[in-house]
Amino acid sequence: MSQQPSTPDPALSTLVGLAAYTELAAFGLLAARSVDAPDLAARQTLATAAGDALGRQERLLGLAVLPGPAGAASAMAPFDGALADFDARTAPSGWAEGLLKSVVGLGVAQDLCRELATGLADGAAGFAAAVGEPRTDDPATAVLADAASADGVLAARLALWGRRVVGEALGLVPVLLAAHPPLAALADRAREAADDGGASAQAWLVSRLTAEHTRRMDRLGLAA
Amino acid sequence: MSQQPSTPDPALSTLVGLAAYTELAAFGLLAARSVDAPDLAARQTLATAAGDALGRQERLLGLAVLPGPAGAASAMAPFDGALADFDARTAPSGWAEGLLKSVVGLGVAQDLCRELATGLADGAAGFAAAVGEPRTDDPATAVLADAASADGVLAARLALWGRRVVGEALGLVPVLLAAHPPLAALADRAREAADDGGASAQAWLVSRLTAEHTRRMDRLGLAA
Repeated sequence: MSQQPSTPDPALSTLVGLAAYTELAAFGLLAARSVDAPDLAARQTLATAAGDALGRQERLLGLAVLPGPAGAASAMAPFDGALADFDARTAPSGWAEGLLKSVVGLGVAQDLCRELATGLADGAAGFAAAVGEPRTDDPATAVLADAASADGVLAARLALWGRRVVGEALGLVPVLLAAHPPLAALADRAREAADDGGASAQAWLVSRLTAEHTRRMDRLGLAA
Repeated sequence: MSQQPSTPDPALSTLVGLAAYTELAAFGLLAARSVDAPDLAARQTLATAAGDALGRQERLLGLAVLPGPAGAASAMAPFDGALADFDARTAPSGWAEGLLKSVVGLGVAQDLCRELATGLADGAAGFAAAVGEPRTDDPATAVLADAASADGVLAARLALWGRRVVGEALGLVPVLLAAHPPLAALADRAREAADDGGASAQAWLVSRLTAEHTRRMDRLGLAA
């Protein structure tokens, strides 16, 4: 049911590729934490969360891409490997750190894509509908918040770990914008549309993402 | 939209628990092979296949279980750990062996549940609809068949590996029937309904599963 505009914004397919790739990465991280979850309820919850990431990915790909794995792969190909450094620098110690990595990494990536989408000439509404609102009742967040609230030592460790993960995730933003000019152009237009001061598009983006991350850590009951 | 019969067959909830648990296990195996897939198209295909397993699981749970992860976990709890021995005895060497393990293991489990469902007093049609027909165009099978057809040495290794995996999977059948009397009763009724000779229910089941496995290996282009 994708609606193909007659002259699609070329930045839309680039943004869809990035967003679809990050949802696929989120699927993998959440599925891995389902496989080694400490109990069956958490295993089921995280499997469902991984399935939700695939559902968002399917809706996103429907905005700009031919159906089937080949179309999906060609849209995502420009971003293949883009998360390898992030992944290598955030090797988790244990299940809860791995789950926090997926929640924070996916959260930053989704927020980035949402912000960039506000710079689209058209298709912004379709993109927002496909990716959905930030969920305050995200099931992976609930599983993690439960684990942290039951264990103060773990909560302190996770607070530190969250800073590490968000630092690495935010560090990807300039790399992505430099490597993909359509994304940099979206960032410029998004900052202009927001009309909130003289910062560079990149600095503006990072400050928006940081603020959203603070709210995310609050929902987890962790110090940002 | 599950239909709750007024006096549900108690064996239905046991069978749903087993089938839902094996789909969750299949999700984990397929997702893991998506994460380490050799290229983006295979990664996407196997993610989608993992998502399909969750879709079947959701339909199955809808037949007999309250919605939500807690209901799902309680239905599956009797089978938690039931695959641990199988898993330990079939540690794969490399990606293709891991994928074959998921295709064969899930295939045998689905076939077992389909055969047992023919012994249900009622609910057999709903169960069959939820789990679906054996797919000859299963995407994970196609990915694996492509890999095997391109590499004769790999194909020979996978043929051996398939025999190992199916042997371990079939070895689980008597263990499951002994541990879960409602499943043993279903097996008895299924064999009676099939009316094809004097074998014990267990021997009859294993011969049916073996025949279906041979067809599966044929579809993969591998010697059974």
